[in-house]
Amino acid sequence: MTPAAENLVADLKRANVLASVQSLLGWDEQTMLPPESADRRAEQQTLLAELHHREATNPRIGESLAALEALGGEATEDERVLRRCARKDYDRLTKLPTEFVREKARADSEGYHAWAEARASRDFAKFAPLLQKQLDLARREAALLGAPDAYDYALDKHDPGMTAARFEALFDELKRDLVPLSRRIVAARRPVKREALRGFPVEKQSEFLREVTTAMGFDYARGRIDVSLHPFSSGDGFDSRMTTRFDVDNPLDSLLSAIHETGHGLYEQGLPREWIGTPLGEAVGMGIHESQSRLWENQVARSWAFWRHWEPKFRAKFAPRLDGVTSDDLYRAINEVAPTLIRVDADEVTYNLHVVLRFEIERRLFRGELAVADLPAAWNALAQELLGLTPAHDSEGCLQDVHWSDGAFGYFPSYSLGNMIAAQLWYAALAALPGLEEDFAAGRFERLLGWLRTSIHARGRRLETEALVRAVTGEGISPRHLLRYLRERYLPLCEG
Amino acid sequence: MTPAAENLVADLKRANVLASVQSLLGWDEQTMLPPESADRRAEQQTLLAELHHREATNPRIGESLAALEALGGEATEDERVLRRCARKDYDRLTKLPTEFVREKARADSEGYHAWAEARASRDFAKFAPLLQKQLDLARREAALLGAPDAYDYALDKHDPGMTAARFEALFDELKRDLVPLSRRIVAARRPVKREALRGFPVEKQSEFLREVTTAMGFDYARGRIDVSLHPFSSGDGFDSRMTTRFDVDNPLDSLLSAIHETGHGLYEQGLPREWIGTPLGEAVGMGIHESQSRLWENQVARSWAFWRHWEPKFRAKFAPRLDGVTSDDLYRAINEVAPTLIRVDADEVTYNLHVVLRFEIERRLFRGELAVADLPAAWNALAQELLGLTPAHDSEGCLQDVHWSDGAFGYFPSYSLGNMIAAQLWYAALAALPGLEEDFAAGRFERLLGWLRTSIHARGRRLETEALVRAVTGEGISPRHLLRYLRERYLPLCEG
Repeated sequence: MTPAAENLVADLKRANVLASVQSLLGWDEQTMLPPESADRRAEQQTLLAELHHREATNPRIGESLAALEALGGEATEDERVLRRCARKDYDRLTKLPTEFVREKARADSEGYHAWAEARASRDFAKFAPLLQKQLDLARREAALLGAPDAYDYALDKHDPGMTAARFEALFDELKRDLVPLSRRIVAARRPVKREALRGFPVEKQSEFLREVTTAMGFDYARGRIDVSLHPFSSGDGFDSRMTTRFDVDNPLDSLLSAIHETGHGLYEQGLPREWIGTPLGEAVGMGIHESQSRLWENQVARSWAFWRHWEPKFRAKFAPRLDGVTSDDLYRAINEVAPTLIRVDADEVTYNLHVVLRFEIERRLFRGELAVADLPAAWNALAQELLGLTPAHDSEGCLQDVHWSDGAFGYFPSYSLGNMIAAQLWYAALAALPGLEEDFAAGRFERLLGWLRTSIHARGRRLETEALVRAVTGEGISPRHLLRYLRERYLPLCEG
Repeated sequence: MTPAAENLVADLKRANVLASVQSLLGWDEQTMLPPESADRRAEQQTLLAELHHREATNPRIGESLAALEALGGEATEDERVLRRCARKDYDRLTKLPTEFVREKARADSEGYHAWAEARASRDFAKFAPLLQKQLDLARREAALLGAPDAYDYALDKHDPGMTAARFEALFDELKRDLVPLSRRIVAARRPVKREALRGFPVEKQSEFLREVTTAMGFDYARGRIDVSLHPFSSGDGFDSRMTTRFDVDNPLDSLLSAIHETGHGLYEQGLPREWIGTPLGEAVGMGIHESQSRLWENQVARSWAFWRHWEPKFRAKFAPRLDGVTSDDLYRAINEVAPTLIRVDADEVTYNLHVVLRFEIERRLFRGELAVADLPAAWNALAQELLGLTPAHDSEGCLQDVHWSDGAFGYFPSYSLGNMIAAQLWYAALAALPGLEEDFAAGRFERLLGWLRTSIHARGRRLETEALVRAVTGEGISPRHLLRYLRERYLPLCEG
């Protein structure tokens, strides 16, 4: 490596050490912080953000980047990855004037409070001006960065290389088949025996999920799992901290949440440790991250093969709770489908329709085809079209998610992108690893994890989202695999 | 306040926000950190230490101090406290050349490893050169700060205003009576019925100590208690984090440890919140801090009055564990005296003799009356004289404590200073609050806590150690009160 690359790596790693402290404080806030200590935590995070910004915008980073760019075709492959990704990150941090950053911070804070009030009073009008403000800011941010299209820019921030046109093509194809498929599955579903899944002691749930996630390969010598209101995964391969939540009357929720977060944690633990904090040791983006969590949660942990190994252990652990429950009952509970207006409560079949809805709204807002004032009507029409349900009021409609209040546009599509990629990787893994599901039936996951390590984790940010999928599966991203997976998983339950 | 004082307060608070992050990471390391994440934590702490040093040595602090000093007698009382204390702290951070700081860091690291090796192989000779190095560094540090006496300087760092001569006078007086008193108590003690204190479920111990510490007044809305190998207290009034440890066969250890740490936590929670991070909202020093923990642990929680309220609850919580145990048996277990060579295992009677021993060694080393090579012989002779015990080897003698390995001279005396002050405050509280022990017998601590809040906590660093004791009790520090307390607590148990 040239001295410029070495300096760049050192400066990025130094900034990342501070980022890892911010992440730890965020984890602590959700899991440990005493209730009245939140103001102090905000003060700590504000100072750390300032210091992190100073480190991440260190002019020497700009100098190293210029030197690497001057190398042109002389640069090694590592150096090309470093300069491409670090340039993107550095420009996003340095090209926004202080005045803009302040205005955005103010809009985020005001937006959050307006959203919370609008949601509580079911009154979209209270939130509308703040949403308009966030849209304007998103357009200005893209312009300041020299991006030709503001929504493309927003999408690329979450999933490098993805565009509105690409998402539109993927979601149109997905929607065409998924709307009728989901209606068919919903119409033919049998009620799940919920009462059999009550009274599962938290302590035993905790032991069980730890056994499962250890078998999956999560390294607890460099990570933890704790409890928070909403499950999440944070930290990095040096110290990976996930959370789950427990409900004595819903043991599958905590288990599947923990498996989902373990998918994220395994990705972080699989990134090249010597490069953590640099593009060579960082995740590609949200869609790829989500593909890792969804693959483990859905393709693996909702399968018959998986439960062939874990069902006897689950029954033994909680005996006699499941005595009257057949294997088929349990499997149906694990794969329950129930349409809802609320995205965070959705099953894996209808979840993607919630995302398509949000993408269509965002796309129309950015294109100027939809005025903010008309958003509730557009939302409700789409909900009826996609989900077959109409919100009774905006708090179960367009006010349900917090994300737009701080301008997180282009974020929701990553979830369905992750679902599509998960299914696509799944069939590639099945083809590459004959008899893979027999591994699961024996409680073994080494081959799958090894394949993900090599195919995805080891590559860091070397390839952008779709290029990575193509390198691993031999084709661009396609919704066909997700549709195939959903048919294979859910149609037998309809016919059964 | 003048603008200089306002700037000083703002700059000190800013540095303190970073210090509070360092403290949180230290707490996390002892309570939560995955075993193989320690290197990453060290990297985080190293960077935070660098950034904290930069904030705490900000030249504007020097300018504000100079401006406040130029005010002379025009300064308000708050400004005088700020300039006196902040000057001391600032000089200690800015007057040491970088080269010295590096050499000290290296000596600390090498010293720790040499000590660990020497202790494991029971070979003091391996540690001797590193200890000599630390002594030399301590002398150089004092000289760089312009302190006339290196040991005075070391003691003042822990307990502002205290000197070797003052400690010598206090400890000579203490020793004269405590050596015969402790021998008398030890000779007349009755064996404690240990077997009755086995098999106490950790979960219930945890519930019980939480009930007790809540009653004492610890604010769990701004604090926590967790588990670590060695109990400690960290954080500040914004977010106070204590720990204890649990042993199913020793429930009194976790309870009394938690009460001790709660004493520290109550002090931090009682410091004026608007001044946290400045001398007006910081603890005086180690001796005063320790007086708070020891007063609650010893004078309060080892008393008959305290147990009149808590014994029935303790019995009910752990029934039928204590069925064959009388109140007298329990009280004797709580107040067990058993001489040992190991300081950290010592009871409250003989503990002070361990401290006197270390003080005498340190004093002689600094005065040049004792060569490092002769330390083991001197230690063993003092152990025999003070404790009536002789170490079989140096690992249960002069190698038992880690503290000298990183040059923490002048630290041990604070513990006995804290014990003396605790007893002195105790009798002052009894005089000021008639019927105080009746409060405890009713499970109430508000009057004692209120008195400590007003007398000690609210004052921050306004007064130095002995001046504060004089302001509260009407006289300088004296060992008489500790001796009186030990006689009143332990002689009845001998005669019983």
